Amino acid sequence: MSTKPAISFEVLARDGEARAGVLTTRRGPIETPVFMPVGTAGTVKGIRFEVLERELGAHIILGNTYHLWLRPGVDVIRACGGLHSFSGWQRALLTDSGGFQVWSLGALRKITEEGTEFRSHVDGSLKFLSPEISMDVQAAFGSDIVMAFDECAAGDAPPDVSRKSMELTARWANRSRLRFDGLQAEELDAGRTEATDLLSGAQALFGIVQGGAHQDLRRESLTRTVEIGFEGYAIGGLSVGEEKSVMWDVVSELAPKMPAHWPRYLMGVGTPEDLVEAVSHGVDMFDCVLPTRNGRTGQAFTSRGKMNLKNAQWTLDTRPLDESCSCSVCRRHSRAYLRHLYMSGEILASVLLTHHNLAFFLDTMRRVRQSIRSGNFKKFQREFTEGLDVYSRQNV
Amino acid sequence: MSTKPAISFEVLARDGEARAGVLTTRRGPIETPVFMPVGTAGTVKGIRFEVLERELGAHIILGNTYHLWLRPGVDVIRACGGLHSFSGWQRALLTDSGGFQVWSLGALRKITEEGTEFRSHVDGSLKFLSPEISMDVQAAFGSDIVMAFDECAAGDAPPDVSRKSMELTARWANRSRLRFDGLQAEELDAGRTEATDLLSGAQALFGIVQGGAHQDLRRESLTRTVEIGFEGYAIGGLSVGEEKSVMWDVVSELAPKMPAHWPRYLMGVGTPEDLVEAVSHGVDMFDCVLPTRNGRTGQAFTSRGKMNLKNAQWTLDTRPLDESCSCSVCRRHSRAYLRHLYMSGEILASVLLTHHNLAFFLDTMRRVRQSIRSGNFKKFQREFTEGLDVYSRQNV
Repeated sequence: MSTKPAISFEVLARDGEARAGVLTTRRGPIETPVFMPVGTAGTVKGIRFEVLERELGAHIILGNTYHLWLRPGVDVIRACGGLHSFSGWQRALLTDSGGFQVWSLGALRKITEEGTEFRSHVDGSLKFLSPEISMDVQAAFGSDIVMAFDECAAGDAPPDVSRKSMELTARWANRSRLRFDGLQAEELDAGRTEATDLLSGAQALFGIVQGGAHQDLRRESLTRTVEIGFEGYAIGGLSVGEEKSVMWDVVSELAPKMPAHWPRYLMGVGTPEDLVEAVSHGVDMFDCVLPTRNGRTGQAFTSRGKMNLKNAQWTLDTRPLDESCSCSVCRRHSRAYLRHLYMSGEILASVLLTHHNLAFFLDTMRRVRQSIRSGNFKKFQREFTEGLDVYSRQNV
Repeated sequence: MSTKPAISFEVLARDGEARAGVLTTRRGPIETPVFMPVGTAGTVKGIRFEVLERELGAHIILGNTYHLWLRPGVDVIRACGGLHSFSGWQRALLTDSGGFQVWSLGALRKITEEGTEFRSHVDGSLKFLSPEISMDVQAAFGSDIVMAFDECAAGDAPPDVSRKSMELTARWANRSRLRFDGLQAEELDAGRTEATDLLSGAQALFGIVQGGAHQDLRRESLTRTVEIGFEGYAIGGLSVGEEKSVMWDVVSELAPKMPAHWPRYLMGVGTPEDLVEAVSHGVDMFDCVLPTRNGRTGQAFTSRGKMNLKNAQWTLDTRPLDESCSCSVCRRHSRAYLRHLYMSGEILASVLLTHHNLAFFLDTMRRVRQSIRSGNFKKFQREFTEGLDVYSRQNV
């Protein structure tokens, strides 16, 4: 087995705790802080890969192991040569472990030391996921970054529940690491590339820190996860129903303590202002369904705040969604037209709003990186956050 | 009022009755025979204008007056500067008169000499359309080609019903022409452009030949429509439930008798083989919902025939939809992936299948034009039609 790493990560600039860097995967470099569009079922809902690549400049997307495992199933993806080959996306792919979806979709039946039993939301059949199965599936997918299989307690869980969950996560992290290393040694990863001077060509494995709202548990979880050793570290179990202040207490305490020489990933977060705030505490990677999901429900994220196209006030408004945005939707289409598409139930409403929302999220991250490199991050954050309040002040 | 025409039409090559030419509108030239994608509600469902322009090379699309009149309504489109400005599509637009949708959506309540009364499918309110209202609405839209307001009898209507319908259509055609000319004289057309050496900058008006399955009524309708005088002539009332042989009897008799120096438009037709067959009788323009509608229901048109992605045989098929197709969907995605998207209910299934289907229709018309120009149209038609049978012979 190669002693080269699967990924490399270099911090190029700092501004306070905020870092701008480059994460190099076997499928190319990714500037950080980075927002990863969520590609649940092997597709970022409503947007073509060509657009993600050429116009939006996305270099990494996320896939959901739970969804893909159930449909089309690991046999189909394996037979088609892995998830890159199956989907046609040749840039970097991160897959989650499946654990979170089992929990969040309410499909869970039983958690044992061995793993989780649940019912498929597709056909109701009984399914079982464990650290070993999750690693096997993610190897068959050939994702470039694999997430350890974790257990996520509710956001408001009491200390004893959170402790049990955190300790189980630590044991599962160990099992994930062992199985993952075995799979890599056997070269069972469908996405394997040739080794380079820098990288091994294998998958990378990220560990996940749990512990709910409890700082002592979070610290212990971080210590135990780092002891096992991963190529990146994620904060899991936030944005799951807890108060926002709880999330910031955890992130602001935890992120700066995470290994500085590996990427830090805040899972499932968040709004544009959340991303910028988390960057200020040293987070490098994000994923969230907000830009895509809200795009499908008529909501646009703009530099002035959120707009709901259901609102009749846009009926005759010939301005673009965001007058500061240069995306192809804002260059061509008016609020009046987009509202019409949404009210008419047209597919293109979802397509165009998803496009704009992703453009806004990805452009925000570009501006975040630029501001860190030029030492103006705090000023950027203040102005950006103030701008977002315009529509809420106008009660739009 | 300018004595220049609103459009010009030049036949550049003939092969039998088939013609290849150029229709020049105030928004640019269009090579014929041409397939016009249907943009019902100011959007060709599931496909962006950028893709229609850049990759698919569509130079004209169709809008449905009925749908746009009901939603967003003529006031919104007028306030936004007409349909080009409202939607962001700056190439040529043809709008139908609304009469066919009232009929086909079963919303019709009553036909009188004055017009048609019907219930809105959007909010159930009582509406009224007449030749004058249809011309007013199409002027407010600023479409480049306006269709006369006609009445369409059922495909299997007996002679007396078809005659009454045809005669009403002739009187409505006259009223359409009168109102249209008045609107142009008053420059009430929202899409008006500067006059050029060749063109007036005004809208063009097409007449519609009716008469059901009855050749004598069709001939009479053609004579009466040509007497009024239009910038193009359409065959209406086909593909509305009659036998296919009836359609070809009418088209093969009628099309060659239509004025040779104006474009001939077969409304609402059809499959790829239908388009090619109609071209062989001298038709120049087509529109049909098949490529877009069937794209949304998992059906692909290919050079080997129709494929239904619901069919389990494509589950592991890593070939493109059509191995002879060079569209961006076929260059990147497999049947297996597209089937997965369709089975998962993903928006992108509609987007990608619509794209491929339109690419196939528009590429077929390119090949039709080329074969006419090179005098090989009959050979092209034979080979093309034989190719389409492959999948039906294999019972796919």
